[in-house]
Amino acid sequence: MVSKLSVKRGIQKRLNVFEEELEALVQEAISSKGAPAMDLARDVLLAGGKRLRPLLAILTYEATGGRDIHEVMDLALSSELIHTATLIHDDIYDQARFRRGRPTIHSSHGLAHAIIAGDYLFALGFSKGGRYDLDVVDMIASSCTNIARGELQQFNHIGDLTTTPEDYYSIIDGKTVGPFATGTASAALVAGASKEVSEMMYDFGTEFGRAFQLVDDLLDLTGDPEMGKPRGTDVHEGKMTLPLIHALTILHGSEREHLADVLNNFSDDRWNELTSLLELSGSFSYTRQLIQNHVDRALEILSKLPPSNAKDLISEVALISRNRRV
Amino acid sequence: MVSKLSVKRGIQKRLNVFEEELEALVQEAISSKGAPAMDLARDVLLAGGKRLRPLLAILTYEATGGRDIHEVMDLALSSELIHTATLIHDDIYDQARFRRGRPTIHSSHGLAHAIIAGDYLFALGFSKGGRYDLDVVDMIASSCTNIARGELQQFNHIGDLTTTPEDYYSIIDGKTVGPFATGTASAALVAGASKEVSEMMYDFGTEFGRAFQLVDDLLDLTGDPEMGKPRGTDVHEGKMTLPLIHALTILHGSEREHLADVLNNFSDDRWNELTSLLELSGSFSYTRQLIQNHVDRALEILSKLPPSNAKDLISEVALISRNRRV
Repeated sequence: MVSKLSVKRGIQKRLNVFEEELEALVQEAISSKGAPAMDLARDVLLAGGKRLRPLLAILTYEATGGRDIHEVMDLALSSELIHTATLIHDDIYDQARFRRGRPTIHSSHGLAHAIIAGDYLFALGFSKGGRYDLDVVDMIASSCTNIARGELQQFNHIGDLTTTPEDYYSIIDGKTVGPFATGTASAALVAGASKEVSEMMYDFGTEFGRAFQLVDDLLDLTGDPEMGKPRGTDVHEGKMTLPLIHALTILHGSEREHLADVLNNFSDDRWNELTSLLELSGSFSYTRQLIQNHVDRALEILSKLPPSNAKDLISEVALISRNRRV
Repeated sequence: MVSKLSVKRGIQKRLNVFEEELEALVQEAISSKGAPAMDLARDVLLAGGKRLRPLLAILTYEATGGRDIHEVMDLALSSELIHTATLIHDDIYDQARFRRGRPTIHSSHGLAHAIIAGDYLFALGFSKGGRYDLDVVDMIASSCTNIARGELQQFNHIGDLTTTPEDYYSIIDGKTVGPFATGTASAALVAGASKEVSEMMYDFGTEFGRAFQLVDDLLDLTGDPEMGKPRGTDVHEGKMTLPLIHALTILHGSEREHLADVLNNFSDDRWNELTSLLELSGSFSYTRQLIQNHVDRALEILSKLPPSNAKDLISEVALISRNRRV
């Protein structure tokens, strides 16, 4: 086992390298022809997300045989740039006013600027990803086209109380899980690992990403606004998260009708009703159990890698991510 | 000299190969995980643009030593996919209702679907471009980040009657000219040509692209709706095209005040006023002369290539493009 302090230090060390690279990239863009678009994107890019995608890419690279983390840095940058591009575009049609504590670009600068800033980060992200071999480029591209698929599928299921767990997994595998899985799988390839190890790390990223999304689902229902995680965004938008899908399957008769009414006509004064129904159906504990299962499987896959400090840190990231409050 | 018929056949032959590849790509996407996004994008992609970017990429590849046009096909596809992605996103904030004779995606399916469909084509375009060497990937990426720069700069000059010719060229070099120039320069690299020849073809693409944009500017002022080119879009949007910038520079006193008033308070019943003022300032003939200069320089650059059928066809494309009505 590694001590909490050494975990924190180990993670911080990688994140510092990443932030330096990201800031250098931003500075380079600002002082070059990309200036106006980067001026727009800089705030959201540097406002400090969790950096989970780049962190996992860096640690996976190290845990699968990589020797010089600068080799994987363009991949790490690519994952964060593309992730931020999708956030900027998502925020437009989700009509979100704030992101990472700052006004969203479309609310401060308007629709056109937000679309263009997102496109700009996409291009920058692809240019970083495009520096690697064809198998990595293909993975990044396929992850991006799958994001589009997942998002469109999610739209089709807005407010659809008949959404199945299969629909749910198909949506999140596109939107959220794919980028994690292709990130870890690509990082292994960049490290020179075999196709088998890369596929193993794809499966790891899949389990990690599903746990991550399910934690997000729970936080949307239980999150503490004072911790910086406003609750209810998904419910208000009619997004069918797994706890809701589970409760709709478990409850019958008047209880299901009650839940359907709460979801179809949701407002903030119905939180108690919704929470009671989700507790009645055991949906919170069911979702927690699913998260545990995904994390367990992620750790099991990870255990097949040879011992290394980076491998221990990935385990810790998975455990920290499971227990996150924001 | 080549006969008109053989020019037409030569161009059509390349376009047919391209359309087949594009349709195969669309079919593959439809029958795979990209289905919902491609379902949205298919219409605008296959509705038949001029295909000038892919055509020039293919012909440049051949004229600079390429032997098998399938080698350059991913580049040709990439250029058209990315171009169409920018059209879909542009149409959102230009509030255009029709594109290539069909309803725009945002007007038929809404904002979110149009943003996602554009992002999807970007990803697909980059994946095709990402199959080439780093120098080509860098050119494509830099052309895309420059599009963003040009678009943002254009926004800053909307309705700005003090816009200079330098501003104008900086805007169009980002938005329109760059993709042409990087397309022809990249095609030369894919053909295995030297860096010098690639730079030469970059200059060719720059001259071609500027002529292309100036023709567009003229058509916006003189275009015939019955030919499928509605006029006045730029004027209504307050876009400062070169004929307008020229007239604002040439006219003085009450005539300039009159022009400023027409541009600041434009409506369709002021066409005659606008046309008279542009004729008075000689802005139509000035723009036509500029177009001729750019085409002449493009042809002069081209003349340095060794003789080939493809080279002759590129000249013809430049001449046809100069005289186009739509």
